[in-house]
Amino acid sequence: MKLVCTQSDLNAHLSLVSRAVPSRPSLPVLANILLEADETTQKIHLTAFDLNLSIRTGFAAQVEVGGRLTLPAKLLNDIVSRLPDGEISLEDQEDEANPVVALKTGAGQYEMRGIPASEFPELPIVEEGQVTDLPVEALLAGFQGSLFATSTDESKQVLTGVHLTLQSDSLEFAATDGHRLAVVQTVSQDESAAAPAATKVSDLNVTIPGKTLRELERMLGMRQMATTVSVNFNPTQAVFAWGEQRLSSRLLEGQYPNYRQLIPKQFARQLTVDRRLLLGALERISVLADQRNNVVKLVIDAPASRVTLSVDAQDVGSGKEAVPAQISGDSIDVAFNVKYLADGLKALNTSEVQMQLNTPTSPVVLTPLGSIKMTYLVMPVQVRS
Amino acid sequence: MKLVCTQSDLNAHLSLVSRAVPSRPSLPVLANILLEADETTQKIHLTAFDLNLSIRTGFAAQVEVGGRLTLPAKLLNDIVSRLPDGEISLEDQEDEANPVVALKTGAGQYEMRGIPASEFPELPIVEEGQVTDLPVEALLAGFQGSLFATSTDESKQVLTGVHLTLQSDSLEFAATDGHRLAVVQTVSQDESAAAPAATKVSDLNVTIPGKTLRELERMLGMRQMATTVSVNFNPTQAVFAWGEQRLSSRLLEGQYPNYRQLIPKQFARQLTVDRRLLLGALERISVLADQRNNVVKLVIDAPASRVTLSVDAQDVGSGKEAVPAQISGDSIDVAFNVKYLADGLKALNTSEVQMQLNTPTSPVVLTPLGSIKMTYLVMPVQVRS
Repeated sequence: MKLVCTQSDLNAHLSLVSRAVPSRPSLPVLANILLEADETTQKIHLTAFDLNLSIRTGFAAQVEVGGRLTLPAKLLNDIVSRLPDGEISLEDQEDEANPVVALKTGAGQYEMRGIPASEFPELPIVEEGQVTDLPVEALLAGFQGSLFATSTDESKQVLTGVHLTLQSDSLEFAATDGHRLAVVQTVSQDESAAAPAATKVSDLNVTIPGKTLRELERMLGMRQMATTVSVNFNPTQAVFAWGEQRLSSRLLEGQYPNYRQLIPKQFARQLTVDRRLLLGALERISVLADQRNNVVKLVIDAPASRVTLSVDAQDVGSGKEAVPAQISGDSIDVAFNVKYLADGLKALNTSEVQMQLNTPTSPVVLTPLGSIKMTYLVMPVQVRS
Repeated sequence: MKLVCTQSDLNAHLSLVSRAVPSRPSLPVLANILLEADETTQKIHLTAFDLNLSIRTGFAAQVEVGGRLTLPAKLLNDIVSRLPDGEISLEDQEDEANPVVALKTGAGQYEMRGIPASEFPELPIVEEGQVTDLPVEALLAGFQGSLFATSTDESKQVLTGVHLTLQSDSLEFAATDGHRLAVVQTVSQDESAAAPAATKVSDLNVTIPGKTLRELERMLGMRQMATTVSVNFNPTQAVFAWGEQRLSSRLLEGQYPNYRQLIPKQFARQLTVDRRLLLGALERISVLADQRNNVVKLVIDAPASRVTLSVDAQDVGSGKEAVPAQISGDSIDVAFNVKYLADGLKALNTSEVQMQLNTPTSPVVLTPLGSIKMTYLVMPVQVRS
């Protein structure tokens, strides 16, 4: 391998792939990044893999001699990120079994010991997979509205992921940790482009690890993003690809809960409220709720067109705030875990939200007014009154 | 107590004093902030105290009924910081033994249980103290050039502080952790003002805890700062006061090392180097030094007018960078702990620095070219060569 690239390219792409380097690698080579330089295409590709998630990226370089080898991710990243902008040359000693790379810049030179590329595990290939193109905008909206509701408890298996369902031209994202449920529906076609019908598949029905989607969200949120992402999947693996970027991930196996049946079809009560006002009040009230089982009580007062939030943390103090609301149906008292209610209000992301409910012990549904189609379901908490 | 103040005032001053609230209070009342409202002056004063360090601050308010009580620092801070800008009213129920305060805003109302002000420990008074005025600019320069070199090891007693010496019109700051020494000399008089001679004292010779000075540095660095600080001290306590702010601190007892005798009077070798170039090279090299005893080797090459930094972390790799330098005296090889050398280069803060040394095993001194008078002494590391 012998090549010249810019510090800014190498640095940007190293930090991109580094997120897939495991913090406690089960094999020494997984702490390394695979570098592949190709004379024909005049490109370098970088790959990191933690056996579940892989990230691969490529960029243009002057490749004099192609080659493949792996270098320690942290060391390479730490040096390259501290170098001034300018050209970097990389050259190995053509000893595949014992790679040593010399990195030269105007400032100085470094030598790093690598591990042969042959020890780097093969990335999973999606065999007999289905391929579809999904619009980046729809994916980002779906991630933003669902990822926060996944479980962080690794023992909860499928609940640590987001369930994706593709049907005709709708794409649905669902996440639940057993206490609340977030569902986002978006269009599955890039309306701005004439998407060729050939890229459509009949049914996508998979659960993707939250960690994978957080990385995908981060990568798609960056500047030089594409408008569509190609997804290739089978029951155990998915590969997302756009431009020179490629992210592969194991899928979560097991039956995802039949969440649609949890959402009530009819509601006896409904209120519309300014999202920021309610969230602000809730965040102040939560200071006291922290001191006492995290429960906030809502008095929904229909004649007064007002919702009053209150917490009584007896030894410490108490708090009460009121927010105006348009209310239909009878007055009712209902209590929530502060965090679950606040998480939903943060994700809904419109100026007004609608809250629909039946009784103090049945599921409550929050939806945004306008904007994307999202449903946030949360169970009230039962309190002595 | 009954008063009205603005959210922005209360919030700003709460966060100022909160730094003196201990994270693990030895008495419950120390987790609280003392509020004192005075009808005559129409001011509120806030005080926090961890038995070593106290911070007191005051601001204008509409005080209808004066009074004193304490409230939980974290709870009060958390609520007030989340309130929108606007007026806040505070009112207690005039029950000194069992204070409960109602905090009302446009948004809602909170009740908080406090602890009687009588349980809040008295702040130390400096008896038979000496008083002097010190310029803020000199104090900030002194802190910036010395605080980083204090020991963080609490068992090292006086070395966790900065030693202050006031003589005629010079003010000297010294800090050492046993491995390196930083000394800053500044003027003790505010040259921009005609400082009255009456405020001068003969000899200030105290060791002030690093934590105290970090808080003082933070407070003095804020916007509405004075140009001089009044210092009142005796052998065990010091009080710094300016405007409505007041910071008191226990002093560190025990003999401070006679650091002046450590600084060599003469040097056989001297070099002048661009500080940023040397620091940049050192920070990259340190990535490899991390992997191997943190030692960097400097080859000072007089004929080539060049300093070469190198690290050989055998199993991992090696690095070498060269920086141009004006060198007088013979060539020499000398090795340093990367962190100690880098800390000094960061603090010196001028575009060029001077390094003076005699042998690879005697103290090396770094000084800034121009700017304030600062001496940074570091012992080289002995290496097999």
